[in-house]
Amino acid sequence: MELDDLATRVGEWLRGTGAESDIVISSRVRLARNVDGFHFLTKATLEVKQELESLVRRKLSELDSPKLSYISLNRLSETDREFLVERHLMSKEHAEGSGDRGIALNDDETLSVMINEEDHLRIQAFRSGFELDQAWEEVNALDSLIESRLPFSFNAQFGYLAACPTNVGTGMRASVMLHLPALVLSKQIEKVFRAVTKINLAVRGLYGEGTQATGNFYQISNQATLGKTEEELLNNISSVVPQIIMYERRERERLAKENEKRLEDKVWRALGILKSARRMSSNEALELLSHLRLGVNMQMLKGTTVSQINELLLFSQPAHLQKTLRRELQAPERDVARADFIRNALGGI
Amino acid sequence: MELDDLATRVGEWLRGTGAESDIVISSRVRLARNVDGFHFLTKATLEVKQELESLVRRKLSELDSPKLSYISLNRLSETDREFLVERHLMSKEHAEGSGDRGIALNDDETLSVMINEEDHLRIQAFRSGFELDQAWEEVNALDSLIESRLPFSFNAQFGYLAACPTNVGTGMRASVMLHLPALVLSKQIEKVFRAVTKINLAVRGLYGEGTQATGNFYQISNQATLGKTEEELLNNISSVVPQIIMYERRERERLAKENEKRLEDKVWRALGILKSARRMSSNEALELLSHLRLGVNMQMLKGTTVSQINELLLFSQPAHLQKTLRRELQAPERDVARADFIRNALGGI
Repeated sequence: MELDDLATRVGEWLRGTGAESDIVISSRVRLARNVDGFHFLTKATLEVKQELESLVRRKLSELDSPKLSYISLNRLSETDREFLVERHLMSKEHAEGSGDRGIALNDDETLSVMINEEDHLRIQAFRSGFELDQAWEEVNALDSLIESRLPFSFNAQFGYLAACPTNVGTGMRASVMLHLPALVLSKQIEKVFRAVTKINLAVRGLYGEGTQATGNFYQISNQATLGKTEEELLNNISSVVPQIIMYERRERERLAKENEKRLEDKVWRALGILKSARRMSSNEALELLSHLRLGVNMQMLKGTTVSQINELLLFSQPAHLQKTLRRELQAPERDVARADFIRNALGGI
Repeated sequence: MELDDLATRVGEWLRGTGAESDIVISSRVRLARNVDGFHFLTKATLEVKQELESLVRRKLSELDSPKLSYISLNRLSETDREFLVERHLMSKEHAEGSGDRGIALNDDETLSVMINEEDHLRIQAFRSGFELDQAWEEVNALDSLIESRLPFSFNAQFGYLAACPTNVGTGMRASVMLHLPALVLSKQIEKVFRAVTKINLAVRGLYGEGTQATGNFYQISNQATLGKTEEELLNNISSVVPQIIMYERRERERLAKENEKRLEDKVWRALGILKSARRMSSNEALELLSHLRLGVNMQMLKGTTVSQINELLLFSQPAHLQKTLRRELQAPERDVARADFIRNALGGI
């Protein structure tokens, strides 16, 4: 697989299909696994990392179904690595790490494995919309398949062992990415998050741990991985997400009824600015496209579709922009290129 | 004359003609005069005000050329009075005053007289563009004409007497309204104003004393009225304005050369928001139309003219908006009506 093939389409997480996809962008389950008989990476020398990478890589390449392509991070430019982060195929930490490491992924980007991130393997399944159960089934199947060829560090009392204690046990993190513009507009979002945090779920920004929520996109995920079964952890999230969806829908209806002009103004200004600006930061693009997405979902705007907006959301990110234009750009040039790209796509004024 | 006739066109100050009219909006000279034998208004009873108003009104009605129409403020609604303030035909103080008072004006609004404002008469000539000398000639001629029928309080040592000491002497205030967006954008405006203030000129906002500068519009006027001749006072302003024009032009060129994208972005975003917003305050409208005006003057935008922008500048003001729509509107409704009005005029998205 060539990265440039990916650069012509949106990844799974922005396909805009699946259940509740007006509010739930995507569902994801990842498993932290370590190969038995090797040190955790915190203690591993570069030689051990190298040995691990080639072992895991070989084992993954032997799989027939799913068929995974392998990308070695060593040979990738900074932009290419950022490109994979923007597609949620790997973490920022993995992009910025050192030593031999890589990622394996299937063609439609629903399955991926990071090799030598914090753990030896991070196996991930990704689905558009609210499809946590399917994501779990897929990641579970891939996990079993890999485990049949590669023994994982497992302890009868604790479960799967991991480099960081917070990942010991199931090694699972399930997360759902939500678009919650109405709850943000009506300042109800903090209340929702306080409730979510109380039942041991974490709220994060668009690009995971330590990132700010931008464009009203939030990820909800489990904190604990130990002491509960995978099903219990999944149930905890799965029961909370429909409530958040309900709150968001209720807020949208309330805004449309009580503050229609304010809402319309927000949505139309977003379109006006996207169609006219000559410079735009990626954060501003996210914010404005987020409002546009709300407008489309609320049937305020015609002529723009959610899939078009999702495409713009992804391709206005720095690395995607540079891959599309096939050249490296500094931030100020990117801001100009981004504004041009979005303006042309939307039929600028 | 009916106010509704005025409501179909822009006033003199926004005609957009005259010298240097890309930067100089208008030139104005006003004279403070008091009728001999009457108390200043600070001490006048309501009866004296009534007597004064009918005397001055009668004398003005006898003039053949210029032919002045008379509007009594007593019978005007708040909106109608605000409407005249927005056209710069009278001051806020006059609109909000009490007792018998009025304004006389000619058809094209180049000449007007406030009766019973702070002084018995405030005679004003108004020209589009940098035409201070012509404004002075016109107001001087009208002043002589009125004085030949109505003796003014005059003291051989001090000159014309006025209710406020700052107006004693010539009783003249000459002012030039400037549009200085580039000096504001490049943060050079304060430096210019410090220099202006040093030579005894005052800088004020769009609606005179005590008003904030909005939309990068500034009025420069003389402070002193005593101890110098009218010509000396006029020369002081007339020599400074060309320098400010030169600074503004230089800044526009510099921005176009060194920061073209920033400038374009500012101008095009303004157009994008004006074409899309569903709610807009009058201050925001002024700001955005100001940037649009800059864009048109710098040949960045096609399809929009300065006269169209000037019209929108005036008609998006609260009272003009209500006169145009022929109904009273509360502020939140006005914000919606204003956005609709501007959007439709500019061919909204």
